[in-house]
Amino acid sequence: MSGKFITFEGGEGSGKTTIAAMVKEVLDKEGYRVTLTREPGGVEIAEKIRDIIHDVKYTNMDRKTEALLYAASRRQHLVEKVIPALEKGEIVICDRFVDSSMVYQGLARGIGIDEVYNMNLFATENILPNRTVFFDIKPEVGLQRVYANKEREVNRLDLENIDFHERVYEGYLTICNRFPERIVKVDASQDIEDVLFQVLEKIREIL
Amino acid sequence: MSGKFITFEGGEGSGKTTIAAMVKEVLDKEGYRVTLTREPGGVEIAEKIRDIIHDVKYTNMDRKTEALLYAASRRQHLVEKVIPALEKGEIVICDRFVDSSMVYQGLARGIGIDEVYNMNLFATENILPNRTVFFDIKPEVGLQRVYANKEREVNRLDLENIDFHERVYEGYLTICNRFPERIVKVDASQDIEDVLFQVLEKIREIL
Repeated sequence: MSGKFITFEGGEGSGKTTIAAMVKEVLDKEGYRVTLTREPGGVEIAEKIRDIIHDVKYTNMDRKTEALLYAASRRQHLVEKVIPALEKGEIVICDRFVDSSMVYQGLARGIGIDEVYNMNLFATENILPNRTVFFDIKPEVGLQRVYANKEREVNRLDLENIDFHERVYEGYLTICNRFPERIVKVDASQDIEDVLFQVLEKIREIL
Repeated sequence: MSGKFITFEGGEGSGKTTIAAMVKEVLDKEGYRVTLTREPGGVEIAEKIRDIIHDVKYTNMDRKTEALLYAASRRQHLVEKVIPALEKGEIVICDRFVDSSMVYQGLARGIGIDEVYNMNLFATENILPNRTVFFDIKPEVGLQRVYANKEREVNRLDLENIDFHERVYEGYLTICNRFPERIVKVDASQDIEDVLFQVLEKIREIL
């Protein structure tokens, strides 16, 4: 596959979705072909699965059910959208990927990072991003941003308590240490222009 | 867990759903506490997942997405319904379980039986039925029954061609050989009373 697969990771309110759109705009202007997408979702079947995962009714969803639904959504999105774009030589920027599962289900929910990763191999067949940008921001700051944004729809994960989001943050630091070549950290508490500048710098390293 | 976990397996139109209801009636009268359930589904979250799996719109669903959705549905159903009933000492009769995934996704769709089984261990944590009854009927006979039943809703799997259903049938024979202690075969082409009699006999062996 001749394209480049770039993923953005981070807790709620880290600004990665906003920055992703800005990065696409910059790279588009420079003549790159860029596909911007997100997980869970990105294609119709995966969006249907996303609806189940995010439904605030399902407070009794088992953590392994949740992990399997993310993996199912990931698989369909990968096969239907990510791989075809990479085969055409495009840059694919994806908001969340397998690192989110390792952090949220593996570490924050306590299933275990290796167990979640191994199950996900069934879905990903070992496809990993060329570069992953971790948007580093303390959870209390990120959550304040989420609550301040009245347009953002509240989902089942937003309802978790601050301890959960602290575990997510610690989880991201753990996987940054585990995959130091692939995952780079950006200080996401800065002004948006500064974050954009640094993210672009990290992406250009692999283009 | 002091209960007994019994699963029914077979191709479309093998009569397992009808027989399951009759078996429950007989065992109820004898004073057993029996939970009758089915896969995919059986609890609300799992039924929502079932809706996605069965939707005739999704002809482009990847076979691994399908396998992961079955596993997600299985996990939720197991945790929410099957395990609690077994812990109370009940008999649980479940229409389809992990054998269906090994046969349909592993063999008929060609992912590989071991790959599907290993991924399912994440969901089942090695819980296997005490007894599995395979309803043995040639696919052309089973499908005739399905088409003759006007009340049965057509799902995405019914739309597969006869070759697919032949592979399912061969797949069931393969896993019968693989798990000879657990899986017993019943000739499902007989009259319904004869099928019921034999199924009850196979179940009583483990009660």
